[in-house]
Amino acid sequence: VLERGLHYGDGLFETIACRHGRPRLLDFHLERLALGCARLRIAFNPFGELRREVENLAAGQASALLKVIVTRGSATARGYGARGDEHATRITLRFPWPQEDSRCIEDGVAVRIAELRLGENPLLAGLKHLNRLEQVLARGEWRDAQIFDALLFSSSGLLVSGTMCNVFIVNEKRLLTPRLDLCGVAGVMRRAVLHAAAASGIATAEAALGHAELDAAEEIFLTNARIGVWPVRAVGARTLVPGAMTRRVQKLVHSLLEGPGDA
Amino acid sequence: VLERGLHYGDGLFETIACRHGRPRLLDFHLERLALGCARLRIAFNPFGELRREVENLAAGQASALLKVIVTRGSATARGYGARGDEHATRITLRFPWPQEDSRCIEDGVAVRIAELRLGENPLLAGLKHLNRLEQVLARGEWRDAQIFDALLFSSSGLLVSGTMCNVFIVNEKRLLTPRLDLCGVAGVMRRAVLHAAAASGIATAEAALGHAELDAAEEIFLTNARIGVWPVRAVGARTLVPGAMTRRVQKLVHSLLEGPGDA
Repeated sequence: VLERGLHYGDGLFETIACRHGRPRLLDFHLERLALGCARLRIAFNPFGELRREVENLAAGQASALLKVIVTRGSATARGYGARGDEHATRITLRFPWPQEDSRCIEDGVAVRIAELRLGENPLLAGLKHLNRLEQVLARGEWRDAQIFDALLFSSSGLLVSGTMCNVFIVNEKRLLTPRLDLCGVAGVMRRAVLHAAAASGIATAEAALGHAELDAAEEIFLTNARIGVWPVRAVGARTLVPGAMTRRVQKLVHSLLEGPGDA
Repeated sequence: VLERGLHYGDGLFETIACRHGRPRLLDFHLERLALGCARLRIAFNPFGELRREVENLAAGQASALLKVIVTRGSATARGYGARGDEHATRITLRFPWPQEDSRCIEDGVAVRIAELRLGENPLLAGLKHLNRLEQVLARGEWRDAQIFDALLFSSSGLLVSGTMCNVFIVNEKRLLTPRLDLCGVAGVMRRAVLHAAAASGIATAEAALGHAELDAAEEIFLTNARIGVWPVRAVGARTLVPGAMTRRVQKLVHSLLEGPGDA
C-alpha cells in the first residue's frame, strides 16, 4: 500500500508482443525501459534477469502480450521526494493476444480526433511512464467499436500520437511522424519503422506536425508493438485508401513481426 | 496487480490533517474527492462510510495525517478504456505528523523556483489525481533541507503552485492565487483561505499570474492541509518579510486549524 507506483505513478511499463514463442523487439523494449529508469532516476539493474524472465514467459506461446511494470518501489518516507534507498518493484504479467479483425492489416482502421489535448512536459516526453490518466480520459471519449483509436494533439496544437499507437503520415514520398520531445510515447515499433525505412532509402523525418499536415497526408498508418503497421482508412469523416508507402513499410517490418522462420 | 491505480494512476487521493482527534476540513476533502470521481467517472459512492472511517482513524490522535486513495479499481479488461463494471478501490492510511520546525509559521520558509514546468490539461486541472510524476521530478531538483518547497510554473509560463502547497501573493492589499484551470491541485486550505478572506472583506482573486506578478508580490504565503498558512521568507535569492496580510489570514484560519475548543 506504500507502493510509489500506486501513489504517484512513479514508474514505467512495457507492453511486449510475443509470437511463436519469442518476444518481439525485446532489445528496443529493454533499451526504452533503461532510458526511462535513467530519466526518472529509478535504480533498476537486473535487466539480464528481466530479459530471461520475459523470454521464459514467451516460450511456448503462439501469441501473447507481456506487460512489464517497473516502479521506484515502496516509499521509505512520506511525500513526493524519493530518498534513493527505495527498492524498485518489478511486475510481469502475461495476457492472451486480444481478438482482432484480420482485415485490419489490409483494409486499415478508422480513427477519430480526440477532444482531449495532451499536456506538454519535455522531462516526461517519450517515456512509457505510469501517468496515463490522459490516455484513460481520451479512450473514454468514444464507445463505437468501429473506432480503433483516437489521434491526439498537444496543448500547443501539435499532433502527437494515438492513445495506444504512434502515427505516421506520408506526404510526397516522405514518411513523417510527430516529434516526441514535448509529450507522447516513443514506441518501439515507431523506432523499428523509422530504422527500417531509412535503411531502405525512404526519406523519413520526426517533425512538428499540425492539423494542416494531417489533413494533407496522402497516407496515414499506425504502429505499436502489437499491431505492427496498420493503415488508417478513415480519420473522422475523411476516408483514405491504404497506399503504396504503407504497403512497402508493412513488408519492411514483416520479418521483425513474424520472425525469419515464418512464411 | 491489475489495479488501474497502479497501471495508469487512474484514481485520486486526499491528505487529511487530524488534530485533537478530528479530521480538519473533512467536508472540503470529501467534496473534492466527489468532484474528482465525477470528472474521472469513477463510480465511488460510499462517502458516508468513508467519512466514518476517517473520523474513526482520527479519533484519539493528537496529530496525524490520513491519506485516502480512491481508484477505479482492478481492470476488468486490458487497455486504457474503462468498461464501467470496475469496483472502486479505497485505501486509507494513517501517518504520524511529520517533524516540523515550529518557527515556520512565524518566520516563514524558503522556496526555490522549479526548473520543471507543469504540463497543462484542463480536464485534470484542480484534481488531486494519482498522476504525480511531475511533482516527484520537481521535488527531486533539490536536496537542501532548508528549502521547503519549489514554486512551479506551467508550460505556458503561468505560476501554478508548489509541489505540495498552493501559493498566494499579496499585492496592494489584494490576495491573489493562481487560477487552476490548466493545471495544479485545488487545495482544501486554499479554498478555506479564499472563503475566510472574502468573508472578512479582503479583496481576493484567482488570477493568471506570471513571473512579473510573483516578483512584484509584497507578501507570499503557502497553504496546504497540514501547514495551514506559512509565510515565504525567501524565493531563491530574494528575501521577504512576513507581512500584515499574511498574519491576518493566519488568524482567520486559526480556528479551522486548531478547532474552536483550542487556545
